[in-house]
Amino acid sequence: MAFVPLITPSRSFVPARIPQLSPRLPQAVPVVSRGRMSPSLPKMTAVAQPSTAASKLTDAAELISRTNVFIFDCDGVIWRGDSLIDGIPQTIEYLRSIGKRVFFVTNNSTKSRAGYLKKFTKLGLDAQAEEIFSSSFAAAAYLEQTNFKETGKKVYIIGEIGIPQELDLIDVPYIGGPDDSAKQPNMDPGGRLEHDPDVGAVIVGFDRFINYYKIQYAQLCINENPGCKFIATNLDAVTHLTDAQEWAGNGAMVGAIRGCTGQEPILVGKPSPLMIDYIVSKYDIERSEICMVGDRLDTDILFGKDNGLSSVLALSGVTTEARLKDPTNDIQPDSYVDSIADFLPRQ
Amino acid sequence: MAFVPLITPSRSFVPARIPQLSPRLPQAVPVVSRGRMSPSLPKMTAVAQPSTAASKLTDAAELISRTNVFIFDCDGVIWRGDSLIDGIPQTIEYLRSIGKRVFFVTNNSTKSRAGYLKKFTKLGLDAQAEEIFSSSFAAAAYLEQTNFKETGKKVYIIGEIGIPQELDLIDVPYIGGPDDSAKQPNMDPGGRLEHDPDVGAVIVGFDRFINYYKIQYAQLCINENPGCKFIATNLDAVTHLTDAQEWAGNGAMVGAIRGCTGQEPILVGKPSPLMIDYIVSKYDIERSEICMVGDRLDTDILFGKDNGLSSVLALSGVTTEARLKDPTNDIQPDSYVDSIADFLPRQ
Repeated sequence: MAFVPLITPSRSFVPARIPQLSPRLPQAVPVVSRGRMSPSLPKMTAVAQPSTAASKLTDAAELISRTNVFIFDCDGVIWRGDSLIDGIPQTIEYLRSIGKRVFFVTNNSTKSRAGYLKKFTKLGLDAQAEEIFSSSFAAAAYLEQTNFKETGKKVYIIGEIGIPQELDLIDVPYIGGPDDSAKQPNMDPGGRLEHDPDVGAVIVGFDRFINYYKIQYAQLCINENPGCKFIATNLDAVTHLTDAQEWAGNGAMVGAIRGCTGQEPILVGKPSPLMIDYIVSKYDIERSEICMVGDRLDTDILFGKDNGLSSVLALSGVTTEARLKDPTNDIQPDSYVDSIADFLPRQ
Repeated sequence: MAFVPLITPSRSFVPARIPQLSPRLPQAVPVVSRGRMSPSLPKMTAVAQPSTAASKLTDAAELISRTNVFIFDCDGVIWRGDSLIDGIPQTIEYLRSIGKRVFFVTNNSTKSRAGYLKKFTKLGLDAQAEEIFSSSFAAAAYLEQTNFKETGKKVYIIGEIGIPQELDLIDVPYIGGPDDSAKQPNMDPGGRLEHDPDVGAVIVGFDRFINYYKIQYAQLCINENPGCKFIATNLDAVTHLTDAQEWAGNGAMVGAIRGCTGQEPILVGKPSPLMIDYIVSKYDIERSEICMVGDRLDTDILFGKDNGLSSVLALSGVTTEARLKDPTNDIQPDSYVDSIADFLPRQ
């Protein structure tokens, strides 16, 4: 609550209403995991048809000449965990110097836009808060979009500090989040957990302090408060909490709430179209001039393809060239690079 | 580990092999929640056709005369939380006195068969361990059935004491469970959680001390140990941890692991046919002479109908008469009673 906004809420955090939300929202998107998708889950329609195998980008100048906006996924493209990938500041600087606009889109909800700005600065990267779209921000943008504040209700949060910080900025009341990390309900005979009937939405983001108290609180709100929304920042199966291994991602937290409520969440992070709709509308950009660059086929590249953007896979993150070219992979970017430093003109 | 078996393992806990496991196992069963089923989840085929509305049981003597075996769900039929339902000991005693066989089947995995026997005794109910089928026992029976012990692998447990106690009885090594309730992985930069590559199965049961350590451990075993099985004791959305409210059930724990692995579990509790196949095979009983009695439509009654048993709904638990007769309910028992004390002859 002691969070000081780095940019003025009225200008940057309370944007003009997006004219229309994509008709695909609210929508549940299947949980995917490193190419292994449960046979019982429907495939995304946009990738159901066979697509041409991607080839390595040989003419960066041509891509750059026809692209005015680059949307970069962060982890695996800009940094890996807490380490900047080689050549990135120069690449971003170069793109800006020739008049390109850049955005950074991440499904990680543990930080707010302001929190990400600090990370960019600490790593020596020049960025503006307005260029950063985290899924914690996307959750707040969704509440704005659906006039949640006018209901007078509050939000229950499963998640880390990024979500409360974003809700502070749009002045939506909330409970839960980090405050509930050490709590335990009364589970003795006759015990119960009293929940607030004024909770009108539960936001579920990545939470390394997930516990039974939070799960039960969310369950009571969703199952017992009429009309209570269930919002997921993202459904990533695994995440890069540290770069030493893959870690259970927000798919785990969302799966827990799905499993005790039988409800499907409203998804606001990639590959949901919410963030791209927001950028297109707010900055009045044509989709054909946007290139999505990411390191994950089933979130980043799918997100680009589903939204009519061009797409480039960067091999600097979780996807190997072998995985991209595996015959079982049916998500193909337009092209791929070792890292976005390949966008720099050759010396 | 200091657990002393109440009955001899070689006689009761290591049963003869079931001739054939149901071809439906391993199989994923949709998560259901109080009649609200996600539209994206397939319906159980056995209830897809309209069925005749159930009527109240008026002639208990007729039902009893054509039934030789009664399978009772426990919570909501025998007891509610820690309180015995009125007239139950007399009813069980009466059925036994006229030569009927009774079994108690529960999806609750927090106790072993021995643990349940203690609960029966404490409540003043006469029962034998052989008559009790908990989903913790079902998980052990599934490992027996699939010759898991011969692989030399061990089990990682998410769950409470019932599962380790059952695995002790069949002499299958395990790690996790209550021992991991206070653990936290090293999530600092460069941190990782080392997992045992010899884990060949993860069993997920209800665990009120679920935490990120357990979720990450299970994720690593399922995603990184080749052939590692993912076994769910049950998928109940809510459970009666106390009788003061509904509590998030094992659907939450299983949902978390499903959400970070993209894998569907092998289900061993109701409505999976494993336990009924086991009883039919071990005791050489015809399905037509068995009546399933429970308080839940989407687990107990479905379990009875899917397995060719007759079925009676007891209104002494979570299902009201209004819910049973709601036009949206398409799961109909053969008949219903206020409680199984209605089986007693009228004075």
